Amino acid sequence: MNKSAGTISKKAGLPPGVLMHVGKRKADEVQISVIDYNVTEFIEFECKTPEESFQFRDKESITWINVNGLHDTAIIGALGQHFGLHPLLLEDVLNTRHRPKMEEFDDCLFLMLKMLSLSEDGNTLISEQVSFVLGKNWVISFQEQPGDVFDTIRQRLRESKGNIRRRGGDYLVYRLLDTVVDNYFVVTEKISDNTEQLEETVLKSSEIETLHEIQGLKKQLMSIRKAVTPLREVVSALQKDDAQFIQAGTTRYLHDVYEHIIQVSESIETQRDLLASIMDLYLSGISNRMNQVMQVLTIIATIFIPLTFVAGIYGMNFDNIPELHWKYGYFAVWGAFLAVGVVMVLYFRRKKWL
Amino acid sequence: MNKSAGTISKKAGLPPGVLMHVGKRKADEVQISVIDYNVTEFIEFECKTPEESFQFRDKESITWINVNGLHDTAIIGALGQHFGLHPLLLEDVLNTRHRPKMEEFDDCLFLMLKMLSLSEDGNTLISEQVSFVLGKNWVISFQEQPGDVFDTIRQRLRESKGNIRRRGGDYLVYRLLDTVVDNYFVVTEKISDNTEQLEETVLKSSEIETLHEIQGLKKQLMSIRKAVTPLREVVSALQKDDAQFIQAGTTRYLHDVYEHIIQVSESIETQRDLLASIMDLYLSGISNRMNQVMQVLTIIATIFIPLTFVAGIYGMNFDNIPELHWKYGYFAVWGAFLAVGVVMVLYFRRKKWL
Amino acid sequence: MNKSAGTISKKAGLPPGVLMHVGKRKADEVQISVIDYNVTEFIEFECKTPEESFQFRDKESITWINVNGLHDTAIIGALGQHFGLHPLLLEDVLNTRHRPKMEEFDDCLFLMLKMLSLSEDGNTLISEQVSFVLGKNWVISFQEQPGDVFDTIRQRLRESKGNIRRRGGDYLVYRLLDTVVDNYFVVTEKISDNTEQLEETVLKSSEIETLHEIQGLKKQLMSIRKAVTPLREVVSALQKDDAQFIQAGTTRYLHDVYEHIIQVSESIETQRDLLASIMDLYLSGISNRMNQVMQVLTIIATIFIPLTFVAGIYGMNFDNIPELHWKYGYFAVWGAFLAVGVVMVLYFRRKKWL
Amino acid sequence: MNKSAGTISKKAGLPPGVLMHVGKRKADEVQISVIDYNVTEFIEFECKTPEESFQFRDKESITWINVNGLHDTAIIGALGQHFGLHPLLLEDVLNTRHRPKMEEFDDCLFLMLKMLSLSEDGNTLISEQVSFVLGKNWVISFQEQPGDVFDTIRQRLRESKGNIRRRGGDYLVYRLLDTVVDNYFVVTEKISDNTEQLEETVLKSSEIETLHEIQGLKKQLMSIRKAVTPLREVVSALQKDDAQFIQAGTTRYLHDVYEHIIQVSESIETQRDLLASIMDLYLSGISNRMNQVMQVLTIIATIFIPLTFVAGIYGMNFDNIPELHWKYGYFAVWGAFLAVGVVMVLYFRRKKWL
Amino acid sequence: MNKSAGTISKKAGLPPGVLMHVGKRKADEVQISVIDYNVTEFIEFECKTPEESFQFRDKESITWINVNGLHDTAIIGALGQHFGLHPLLLEDVLNTRHRPKMEEFDDCLFLMLKMLSLSEDGNTLISEQVSFVLGKNWVISFQEQPGDVFDTIRQRLRESKGNIRRRGGDYLVYRLLDTVVDNYFVVTEKISDNTEQLEETVLKSSEIETLHEIQGLKKQLMSIRKAVTPLREVVSALQKDDAQFIQAGTTRYLHDVYEHIIQVSESIETQRDLLASIMDLYLSGISNRMNQVMQVLTIIATIFIPLTFVAGIYGMNFDNIPELHWKYGYFAVWGAFLAVGVVMVLYFRRKKWL
Repeated sequence: MNKSAGTISKKAGLPPGVLMHVGKRKADEVQISVIDYNVTEFIEFECKTPEESFQFRDKESITWINVNGLHDTAIIGALGQHFGLHPLLLEDVLNTRHRPKMEEFDDCLFLMLKMLSLSEDGNTLISEQVSFVLGKNWVISFQEQPGDVFDTIRQRLRESKGNIRRRGGDYLVYRLLDTVVDNYFVVTEKISDNTEQLEETVLKSSEIETLHEIQGLKKQLMSIRKAVTPLREVVSALQKDDAQFIQAGTTRYLHDVYEHIIQVSESIETQRDLLASIMDLYLSGISNRMNQVMQVLTIIATIFIPLTFVAGIYGMNFDNIPELHWKYGYFAVWGAFLAVGVVMVLYFRRKKWL
Repeated sequence: MNKSAGTISKKAGLPPGVLMHVGKRKADEVQISVIDYNVTEFIEFECKTPEESFQFRDKESITWINVNGLHDTAIIGALGQHFGLHPLLLEDVLNTRHRPKMEEFDDCLFLMLKMLSLSEDGNTLISEQVSFVLGKNWVISFQEQPGDVFDTIRQRLRESKGNIRRRGGDYLVYRLLDTVVDNYFVVTEKISDNTEQLEETVLKSSEIETLHEIQGLKKQLMSIRKAVTPLREVVSALQKDDAQFIQAGTTRYLHDVYEHIIQVSESIETQRDLLASIMDLYLSGISNRMNQVMQVLTIIATIFIPLTFVAGIYGMNFDNIPELHWKYGYFAVWGAFLAVGVVMVLYFRRKKWL
Repeated sequence: MNKSAGTISKKAGLPPGVLMHVGKRKADEVQISVIDYNVTEFIEFECKTPEESFQFRDKESITWINVNGLHDTAIIGALGQHFGLHPLLLEDVLNTRHRPKMEEFDDCLFLMLKMLSLSEDGNTLISEQVSFVLGKNWVISFQEQPGDVFDTIRQRLRESKGNIRRRGGDYLVYRLLDTVVDNYFVVTEKISDNTEQLEETVLKSSEIETLHEIQGLKKQLMSIRKAVTPLREVVSALQKDDAQFIQAGTTRYLHDVYEHIIQVSESIETQRDLLASIMDLYLSGISNRMNQVMQVLTIIATIFIPLTFVAGIYGMNFDNIPELHWKYGYFAVWGAFLAVGVVMVLYFRRKKWL
Repeated sequence: MNKSAGTISKKAGLPPGVLMHVGKRKADEVQISVIDYNVTEFIEFECKTPEESFQFRDKESITWINVNGLHDTAIIGALGQHFGLHPLLLEDVLNTRHRPKMEEFDDCLFLMLKMLSLSEDGNTLISEQVSFVLGKNWVISFQEQPGDVFDTIRQRLRESKGNIRRRGGDYLVYRLLDTVVDNYFVVTEKISDNTEQLEETVLKSSEIETLHEIQGLKKQLMSIRKAVTPLREVVSALQKDDAQFIQAGTTRYLHDVYEHIIQVSESIETQRDLLASIMDLYLSGISNRMNQVMQVLTIIATIFIPLTFVAGIYGMNFDNIPELHWKYGYFAVWGAFLAVGVVMVLYFRRKKWL
Repeated sequence: MNKSAGTISKKAGLPPGVLMHVGKRKADEVQISVIDYNVTEFIEFECKTPEESFQFRDKESITWINVNGLHDTAIIGALGQHFGLHPLLLEDVLNTRHRPKMEEFDDCLFLMLKMLSLSEDGNTLISEQVSFVLGKNWVISFQEQPGDVFDTIRQRLRESKGNIRRRGGDYLVYRLLDTVVDNYFVVTEKISDNTEQLEETVLKSSEIETLHEIQGLKKQLMSIRKAVTPLREVVSALQKDDAQFIQAGTTRYLHDVYEHIIQVSESIETQRDLLASIMDLYLSGISNRMNQVMQVLTIIATIFIPLTFVAGIYGMNFDNIPELHWKYGYFAVWGAFLAVGVVMVLYFRRKKWL
């Protein structure tokens, strides 16, 4: 986090609107793909240069331009200029450390959010920044790297399934947004599983590794929270928007997404609460263990230290120790040993230490 | 929780309006029962197919259609289509992981909440999702499984007790809602009893099992809270509603329900506070116990270790240890033993360790 | 708390408006007393039946009907019917587990709050529910049991002291409310005294009893808080009320009550903070004590264990231990004992353990 | 605190407007001083009776009447009556346990706040209640005891420095308020110094006294907070006031005071945070110390207990212990002692206990 | 902090508008530099006296007057008088302990904030107060000491890069503000790095130094937070400003700054959360270590204390101890020693202490 965030600080002092990619380069090459559709027609192709996509700006049909890879600022800049994107908008698209936001410009709506997924072993959280720009009849989406998350949407567009091809660009943006939010559930459910497993582990034993796992989950939740919390406002604002870019019929769908975001938020808070109480369990597990160790030590020491003392007494070399010469002195001492031992054991039983 | 929630994530990427049951199948078969009433007439029967209930949609009398079991999406879909329910509404009905919500559609009011109860041994919290749809002259209720919670309402309808048959569908929905909320009291009171019992236990002893019980109650409270908190907004919105579906006379009754929900909420917060301080009591109980153990060890060790040392001295085999040849040396040493012991005991008394 | 609250759950499933007493029966018999007054006249008597009070409903003079005891629902019901009280209002009056509330009805204002007092030994908090209904020219007050709290008001009415007889029913309600709130000061001041005493105790020693006392005070504060917090809204709403029942001149007095409630609230929060830091003091007291115990053990063990070892060496029975035959071997060993002891003591001094 | 607050509860049941001094009597005698000024004239004298000040009520010039000492309710009452002060206002002036407040009456503005200072040794917080009443052309200030806080203002009035004599009573009230708030800085800075010193102490050692000091500072902060927090609202309301008593030109000055209050508030919160982390430092200091103690004990015990055992073996009196008769048996055992000791020390080194 | 804050309290009692420098003198001499520009012209020079800058007040071109060093109140006063700055504004400029603020005056906009940087070794946070006054066609900036932070802006002005010379004074203020906020990223990223490093350290070992570092970072975060939190309101107010001083086109840029401030705020909260959990890790690290120490002690003591007791038995000098005369008694005892040792080790293995 720090290293990449470090690159934000490199921008310190630069004037606004200077395009600069902030973040790790995750893609080899910038890929631009174009899908243009209406109810009856459907065109799909990959662009070699951004210019190939320019012709679709003023077409009546809906055009979805997807850009994978953000490191080539020249391409992004060209695209931005042709579609009339504000320099500050482009700056935000390129700054992968930015928090989710929504901003309305004169001729387009800008939406930026985080796509979350888990690494294949399920233990590392991967966060990718995704931006959507919704203009009149066109949608531009920016991703940091190629991925198959939006493939189901492409498939439905190709097959003209559902009413996606009957609706406008705002509905397409809703579907993209919905897909991203659905992935939050996948992630939080995995974390929820891990938390539950951790709880069971902690109830059994308190290993130091548990602590590291708690810390790991805590940090994952912090990351998700940072992605999801600002999204509440964003989608809430989209719904209420006085509808320059969002059609009335899409609002209810956006409300549905909003509810999902609330649900993810609540789930995160629940996980946090749970982790806090798992931490408590862990700490009292340690205390309990310490208690047990102390009890064993105390029992052993308390029984044998007095006995050793008695043995020590009769190991003394005084000329005149009458007991030493008793015939059954030794056996009497053994009797004393046993008596003390039994009394001690009974005492510990009563104290419930045994 | 995680496994069932897991099924939400299966919906990731699916378009909106695709009906899919999210949750465990709790009923064998979908049961549909219909009650149709006005002040003078009363009809009650079980439907074999959803189509049997369709005739009541446009009747002037109030019709209450109750559906038990959500796994057969075809039946739910047919019912939804005939009564003009929005696809997103049906999706919510089938998604038993959804949080409580209220949504107003053009021709119906949709209400979704959690019915809470305790298992027979009183230790497991059972949560079932219940949905109500209030249309013009009809009410459809969806439950995950058959239950007798609403039987008192049916009974009053049959016997025409009170003014329930003189009033509209909104009053019926209020009564259903009220019944569900009344059950929250049953649950929170049981948890309150358990908490109080736990407190008494903790004041007496600090067993590790207590910790598990605290954790269990905490999680139950978290579940109830998740069910009740969103309900505040829901019922608050119902009251304030500009009354397309709620008649003026019913508003005061809804306000009554609202106050009950507030009371349950406050009770939950009180329980949480109490559990937190029980946890504190538990932890200091452990500390106290450790202190006691340490004191016993310290007292025994502090008394006997010096004595053993003295015994050790006179167990040495030096040729020239004058004391060994004293006539009463041995007895003098015993005197020393006793003196040291008494001094130590007095010292511990003053320190209040004995 | 749980047992009484248990009775709320008995109402689960009952329709609204069914009168049922929730709470313990605290009075033997329902007592109804009537005071009727204006500037010049004053009538006071006890009613045997509720019907005796009915004549005052439409009189021009102010009538104050006080009801002690809530268990006889028939009497309450009759009174309610004659004075036109809403069934939900009566239900609330009888439900002594309800939270404080204010509700405005068409022809009366309903106010419900908790009267708090301490038991004679000052350690148990007693909470009693009190309700006031303010109508046109009449005030009905309901108490769970007879008490002398309102006697000063009765006395002033009898003696026509102050301007109480020149003012309307709203001023009477204000005076009743003010009296109840004044009692909160008595209670919180007693608790504040106890807290302060506890703090001094804790600074001296950390007994397990302290913990129980902290827990007791915490729970008392939780109870008071539950009584006072909703009252803020209640009185705040009364002040702002668009004055159907409250005359303009009374508002400033209500504001005075409001400020008192705020002050009680703040005092409760202060006490809670104090208790939390007393808990901290207690816990670190325990830690300190444990530390002391450990130090004593460590000092004794660290000094004597090595010495005992040395004594053990010369207790060995090897044939060839030259030192044993030295003339002053024994005394040399004593020298070693003393040297080790002194070094140890110096070491502990430097470590500030002694 | 409790004793004085106790007197509030003595008012329980009393009707409003009964004058009664709540708090300790801090002044021997009530002193009334009058300053009357306009740009050109200046009169200053001490009144023997309140009546001497009455003549100034209707004069055009600004009159500042300062009252020191609140215990003589007759004097306060006479003054109040002549200047038309509301009985509730006078009640508040006399109740030194009241929280800071602002209230607008028909013909005057009432302001009540706490003056804070530190005792000469800098360790005790002294809180005094101060009230200001701003009427048309006159200001009355009430203090619990004589003090020289306002002397700089008197001096400037005498010398006609600045524009204070050109401005109205509202500006005078602002200057009085400003002076009181400036004293909050003096107090919080002293506390800040103490906190910082405490932090340094804690980083060095964890004495039980530190705990008491932390607790002391915490309570001081709680007191200041109680004085400052309500003042935010008070001064905020003064600024926004629709200006019956505050002239437009004074508003910006009041805003300045408001900002000072915010700054004091923030400083208090910072101190609280700091104290909380000092408490953490203290507690981990104790843990660290315990750890050290335990390590010393463990090292000593772990090295010498096995050695003592070996010595014990060769102290046994079996007839047949071959080693005892070896020529260098004794020295071999010494070798073993040293070897065990060295191994142990190396082990502890690796564990970083030494 | 305390020493410098101490100087605020020196102002206690002083009337408003008295100019007094609060804070450390950080500059040798007050430096005044003037830049005057429009699209075509550019003038830059250093003033020897403030009077040299006065001519620019009424020029049409934009003038930026930068003042380094605040200790010479005469110079600041002269400047203030000529440019019509309110005495309270100048007081704020000179009070380097003031919190960030924005205030709109009749003919200028006043902005005050903290410039943060890290000392060269990266461990000390340096906070400098910066104020901007935006009037008609002129901007005055006040810094405590000379610095090169604004040099990039000067450079762009000189080279007429970007559109900075085509825009008004409000855009210049935006650029100054933006530069200051960009530096917050540099600081928080450094702290984030330190926190991350600390976390790794803590996962490995729990040294007392770690505690001091946690405390240090906590205090740095507290300082940054104090600088950034009020800025949110400030810039939020600037954006919404009804635009007397801010032109419409600049608002979007200010919104960009606003988002940066939000991001810094969130980053601070994240760091605080992280530090809190690092503290938890540290504390459980200590507990774990204590546990280990106790286990070692217990294992050693539990094994050897009973063995020593057995050895002690056969060191007794009773005349009649039959075992002593057995031929293989000694070896039998060795067998017992080994057996006890093995049993103990197995027991500890099962307890997972070994």
